Amino acid sequence: MQGLFITVEGPDGSGKTSLVKELSRQLEEILTVPLLTTREPGGSQIAEKIREVIIDPNHQEMDDRTEALLFAAGRRQHVTEKIRPALEAGQVVLCDRFVDSSIAYQGAGRKIGVKEVASINQFATENLVPDLTLYLDVDAQVGLNRIGSKESNREKDRLELEAISFHNRVRAAYLTLLEENPERIQLIDASQTMEAVLKDSLTIVENKLQTFGLLED
Amino acid sequence: MQGLFITVEGPDGSGKTSLVKELSRQLEEILTVPLLTTREPGGSQIAEKIREVIIDPNHQEMDDRTEALLFAAGRRQHVTEKIRPALEAGQVVLCDRFVDSSIAYQGAGRKIGVKEVASINQFATENLVPDLTLYLDVDAQVGLNRIGSKESNREKDRLELEAISFHNRVRAAYLTLLEENPERIQLIDASQTMEAVLKDSLTIVENKLQTFGLLED
Repeated sequence: MQGLFITVEGPDGSGKTSLVKELSRQLEEILTVPLLTTREPGGSQIAEKIREVIIDPNHQEMDDRTEALLFAAGRRQHVTEKIRPALEAGQVVLCDRFVDSSIAYQGAGRKIGVKEVASINQFATENLVPDLTLYLDVDAQVGLNRIGSKESNREKDRLELEAISFHNRVRAAYLTLLEENPERIQLIDASQTMEAVLKDSLTIVENKLQTFGLLED
Repeated sequence: MQGLFITVEGPDGSGKTSLVKELSRQLEEILTVPLLTTREPGGSQIAEKIREVIIDPNHQEMDDRTEALLFAAGRRQHVTEKIRPALEAGQVVLCDRFVDSSIAYQGAGRKIGVKEVASINQFATENLVPDLTLYLDVDAQVGLNRIGSKESNREKDRLELEAISFHNRVRAAYLTLLEENPERIQLIDASQTMEAVLKDSLTIVENKLQTFGLLED
């Protein structure tokens, strides 16, 4: 028996985290199998330790490629300890961010290279690809304004200008992934209200669950 | 100006560590440029933290691919902080183990796949390849006996039998690397006395240094 693997992607400020929470709550009620809602490091002790190395503010010398390899290592452990066992038990896995995030943020945003980052993540996941990915699309500036709205009344400095070009590259990478994976990745217009985003997402997810025979009658 | 990058490879029990120490001492006396003698994690604070995650005895659930990615991450940081700057300053770098070790131990020994491990390490090092690699070759059983000589008077158990097949795979991988990189990798017969191993190694290294114009007249 093989479960269903759903990921949610999109920039910070797209409402991703709220959506995952609400989707999870609603799916619990209609699924015929258990649901695992997760995000890296996913409760894996080793992945948690790896995450501590990544986010340690003393690690100013951390190279971009080191960071990408650490994300891939933590993901590997999360996949091995949590995601694969759940899928093999026939469960539905709902995961907040996965490989697409690394491709968009490290590969395109930090300019390491989309193909290179995809390649180390294929190694990390042994080609585990989500059955469905909800991509919450929002203009980079709108997303940034949502996060940092209190800072929006003044001139942008050099770092903020860099930030917007970084986030533009991230969004462009997501849109390329969407184009290359039209079956897997479904775009949700995240400039809508939270209610509309949830409604669009539920329609797509329920449709997929139906196909997999995982819905209550 | 570009320095010279020398690595020393071979199984535990091959006398690798003693050779690096003695080579380092003798090279200091004849080089026209500074020598950096190093080994992972190479004094990089971040690489040290990554190493702690790898060797933590509580991390029994560590997956082989996670470990390979962590080694690559630590290597990346060591290369970025220490090895590349030294080479760019025109120095000679003598490094105890490098990518070949991961290919032999993780790729072949642990059966992750030689090509896969080579690939993530190309990402990690941005294709930094040693100018010269000394490979200390010794029969796997001889190497094991040297390390665990006090245990050699009794029947081998299942784990030790597994160990010998593991070490046979490691040696076979080294020999394949040698075949594929005849210019870069030089085989040293490590079943010889330490003096003979050192003499052979020095001849090869001095020859390379001469070519690079890095020897005292």
